[in-house]
Amino acid sequence: MTKEEIKVFCPATIANISCGFDVLGVALDSVGDEMIVRKVSEKGVRITKLEGQDLPMETLKNVAGVAGIELLANSDYEGGFEIEIYKKIKAGSGIGSSAASSAGAVWAMNELLEKPFSQLQLVKFAMEGERLASGVAHADNVAPALFGGFTLVRSYDPLDIVTIPAPIALYATVIHPQIEVKTSDSRKILKTSITMETGIKQWGNLGGLIAGLFKEDYELIGRSLVDHIVEPIRSILIPGFDEVKKAVVQAGALGSGISGSGPSIFALSEGASTAQNVAVAMRGVYENIGIDYEVHVSKVNVDGVREL
Amino acid sequence: MTKEEIKVFCPATIANISCGFDVLGVALDSVGDEMIVRKVSEKGVRITKLEGQDLPMETLKNVAGVAGIELLANSDYEGGFEIEIYKKIKAGSGIGSSAASSAGAVWAMNELLEKPFSQLQLVKFAMEGERLASGVAHADNVAPALFGGFTLVRSYDPLDIVTIPAPIALYATVIHPQIEVKTSDSRKILKTSITMETGIKQWGNLGGLIAGLFKEDYELIGRSLVDHIVEPIRSILIPGFDEVKKAVVQAGALGSGISGSGPSIFALSEGASTAQNVAVAMRGVYENIGIDYEVHVSKVNVDGVREL
Repeated sequence: MTKEEIKVFCPATIANISCGFDVLGVALDSVGDEMIVRKVSEKGVRITKLEGQDLPMETLKNVAGVAGIELLANSDYEGGFEIEIYKKIKAGSGIGSSAASSAGAVWAMNELLEKPFSQLQLVKFAMEGERLASGVAHADNVAPALFGGFTLVRSYDPLDIVTIPAPIALYATVIHPQIEVKTSDSRKILKTSITMETGIKQWGNLGGLIAGLFKEDYELIGRSLVDHIVEPIRSILIPGFDEVKKAVVQAGALGSGISGSGPSIFALSEGASTAQNVAVAMRGVYENIGIDYEVHVSKVNVDGVREL
Repeated sequence: MTKEEIKVFCPATIANISCGFDVLGVALDSVGDEMIVRKVSEKGVRITKLEGQDLPMETLKNVAGVAGIELLANSDYEGGFEIEIYKKIKAGSGIGSSAASSAGAVWAMNELLEKPFSQLQLVKFAMEGERLASGVAHADNVAPALFGGFTLVRSYDPLDIVTIPAPIALYATVIHPQIEVKTSDSRKILKTSITMETGIKQWGNLGGLIAGLFKEDYELIGRSLVDHIVEPIRSILIPGFDEVKKAVVQAGALGSGISGSGPSIFALSEGASTAQNVAVAMRGVYENIGIDYEVHVSKVNVDGVREL
């Protein structure tokens, strides 16, 4: 008998990861949304419940709704879906809030339809949710949310997603200062050209980071977590950014950077206890500044969206 | 008893490798120079023989001489060295002719002195030869010549070389059309800035290529051999370039590009027989055009400079 309803965990994700602007992402394990998706006879997609965040429930204004509609448009399924969304990831946090909802919805629907679609097709559907959220159908959050681990968007045309292994002891610490930075705004301030010299440094670091992940060389991962292009510009929007960068290295982190388009700041560490120390260091900075914050410590999620 | 003389093989190298401009390189196995290096009591470095190419023998005008002097300057060795150079790699071919001599000289000297220097230090010494040859102390040829396999120059300041494994069945075919393109000239025509969009494509491909090498995913290696930045400009200097690119793919190559700053063109293939078919296809193009050429088919050299 086929399943009529499924409850899923939809992981938060860190995109860009310093040197991998617009191409790299990684899924987290300890923070994510929950969704219940249900097959119904009525066509279309309806959001029947939305808890935890103040987001639109109309299908075409909700990222899960839009991603689901895109899946339905490519399916011969005659019925529809109801979605209940329990947001744990704050919208605008920079850890893939919209991607979690988009990815979770299409992954759950695919399960209920007995997997007619590949993971790559699901990424394409979920990207429509991202288009709604930010104006750009980017894949650097939805790809790791669906595939798990680290993912590289090698190319958009055609879409080519490369999975990258995560060293077993690699942990992420993320702090979300409670200020608003919209993805669309933080894209606008970026330059449209870069110097060749800067580009060479950036792809050198990106190559180093990917090699470090394959080699499980934590030092190399740390040395490669450098962003010469986006961080110098976007970090201006994040109070306390430079202090956090200094504090996390002192606490033992391999390196750090802006999570997605911010304002969250991530750090990577070898081992859970170092990641916890890094969390303490991050908290200290925002306690001093007097900005509210939320901190997550997580190992890398290697499965992506999963059934609960 | 310590050795007084050593004969070494100094591999040719392909730098850039499409998407890895200024950072990636790979060592070849079937083409390289030979050198004999000898300890002598007289201080300094002397080139006592130079066969195969018309190159200067004065120490400070010869890349091996300059690299050797740099090593001596960092050594407490009281004597000097004589070098015999048997060039098999044509100068100006774009497959690391100067790097082979520079790398071979310092590697051989380090052996004779019983290895006081690390491979990374040898790279630094050999880079001085590259500075003489092209005006820029780049490492993307000398690093693979010394380490073997694929190497990534993650950073110059500080110098950080990352070794990347070579899949066992990966073969290179290189054709050297007998026209002159100077490294210094082919650097001058490059743009000093690139669009962010192009940069993102480039580091996506570089990430894909490195992941493909680690995963031994030949298809991914092939898809990643794309250069949006340098190839469109430099290829104008190479007659027959577009025809060669088409012909090698038809012959089964994974992909192709400009070797170093040209004029040589490389292709990578899975398996020796495909690499041989690619050589036939490359020859066909230059037979038609009526330009003399030299073709090399080689597996990846995983050792770098070695004793003969």
